[in-house]
Amino acid sequence: MPPRTVTDRAAAPVDPASLAPAEARALFRGGLASPTAGWSRGFTQANLIIVPRAQAFDVLLFAQRNPKSCPILGVQGAGETSGPLLAGGDIRTDLPRYTVYEDGVLVAEPGDITGWWRDDLVTFIIGCSFTFEAALQDAGIRIAHIEQGVNVPMYRTTVRSASAGALAGPMVVSMRPIPAAQVADAVRITARYPAVHGAPVHVGDPAVLGIVDLAAPDFGDAVELRDGDVPVFWACGVTPQAAVMESRPSLAIGHAPGFMLITDARDSDYLVP
Amino acid sequence: MPPRTVTDRAAAPVDPASLAPAEARALFRGGLASPTAGWSRGFTQANLIIVPRAQAFDVLLFAQRNPKSCPILGVQGAGETSGPLLAGGDIRTDLPRYTVYEDGVLVAEPGDITGWWRDDLVTFIIGCSFTFEAALQDAGIRIAHIEQGVNVPMYRTTVRSASAGALAGPMVVSMRPIPAAQVADAVRITARYPAVHGAPVHVGDPAVLGIVDLAAPDFGDAVELRDGDVPVFWACGVTPQAAVMESRPSLAIGHAPGFMLITDARDSDYLVP
Repeated sequence: MPPRTVTDRAAAPVDPASLAPAEARALFRGGLASPTAGWSRGFTQANLIIVPRAQAFDVLLFAQRNPKSCPILGVQGAGETSGPLLAGGDIRTDLPRYTVYEDGVLVAEPGDITGWWRDDLVTFIIGCSFTFEAALQDAGIRIAHIEQGVNVPMYRTTVRSASAGALAGPMVVSMRPIPAAQVADAVRITARYPAVHGAPVHVGDPAVLGIVDLAAPDFGDAVELRDGDVPVFWACGVTPQAAVMESRPSLAIGHAPGFMLITDARDSDYLVP
Repeated sequence: MPPRTVTDRAAAPVDPASLAPAEARALFRGGLASPTAGWSRGFTQANLIIVPRAQAFDVLLFAQRNPKSCPILGVQGAGETSGPLLAGGDIRTDLPRYTVYEDGVLVAEPGDITGWWRDDLVTFIIGCSFTFEAALQDAGIRIAHIEQGVNVPMYRTTVRSASAGALAGPMVVSMRPIPAAQVADAVRITARYPAVHGAPVHVGDPAVLGIVDLAAPDFGDAVELRDGDVPVFWACGVTPQAAVMESRPSLAIGHAPGFMLITDARDSDYLVP
């Protein structure tokens, strides 16, 4: 498909991949609502979870106990609206779309959460597998959901996350079909990105995870497996979000799926030797 | 020096290096007070910080923001006296010696903290560089403080840690002299252990860190540098402990220096590719 373009304030089309993170955030702050896949190439996109201070310890402890599904890249303390991952930015306005939950119920999907902001809100910025997908593609590994133009398929498993205070729930996984000859490479490459889910949690047999039908994901879209593809499963950032929402805090705010925070961190910042 | 031995309940001498972690913890629970260097070879030793629930979020946030100096291996929630890192054990009795601080003042160095225990105490188990020292030695890199039979030298620096709530303070570093030809190997090897301080934070010139005299460490003992040695600095687990104590919580408990928690985790569990 042709490269997408966005129109900036002067009405000249620009390639979203070439935008600096601060430029992308400024467009979203100005009202643009676009999914962020492919934007600001080389910069790390992230999941967002915002909860009141009273729930924040449980979220941080859940993350510490489930590092593969909940890799925290940054935390902004109670009432802090910016931080080093979004220099000069504002977490209340700089994502293209948010989800707002009250008592565990989705009540809005706004482009700005200023109206919900409270001085006791703590912001968690959580790693996203977009980061290692670029590294897989660089190594010649096809990413099925990108090639097929759909969202990555995600599944609730029968594996329980380690619980933390009020937070508990199943591990959610994303799945990428990988040709058998490239599975070892996919493991090796993603293992070098522990801050963005790291190595797979499972290779092969979906039934062991309690997944009965790969064609019926719980979130995202189904993808086709080719002959010789092995389903490979990574821990998924939906895991903490689902656990938080199920604990029904008075207020919880996330990003809308696919409408991520574009941070100032570079993908290479999260590469280990 | 000859291998140290300890005397078990049946009075037969045993080599501490060969003890399973649970056996070592049982000896300490029974009253033995010994430094743990060299004990339970291959198993991970750890630092301990215990604080009331009211301070726990700040500690966890300080750790998240300073991962090189404060790598958390495990957290036991309020009132939990055991956990997966010490299966069947009891955090109140299973270290050889503790330090107890009230309002920031050291009040006792007991072998058992049962008398201080409260149901709101949260336990943080923090990685220790003992883990990567074995890997350095395996690669033929001499560890000066081990060869010279002293504690590792540690220095307060002029680099500030990222603060978190009430917690702030300088980064504390440990120093190991490394022959110039082996510095790259030392970096490469320790970088593979991010959960136990990881790669050095600084190689060479101590003055840049505000260290005026390598022979006068702030903690531990001075070591000799040989001709051709470069001082190499790693973030140190004293950093979070100092920040916690300086915030003067009503109660804080740590391990006594050198008298570590011996966990059931293997050193290899913390090795990344």
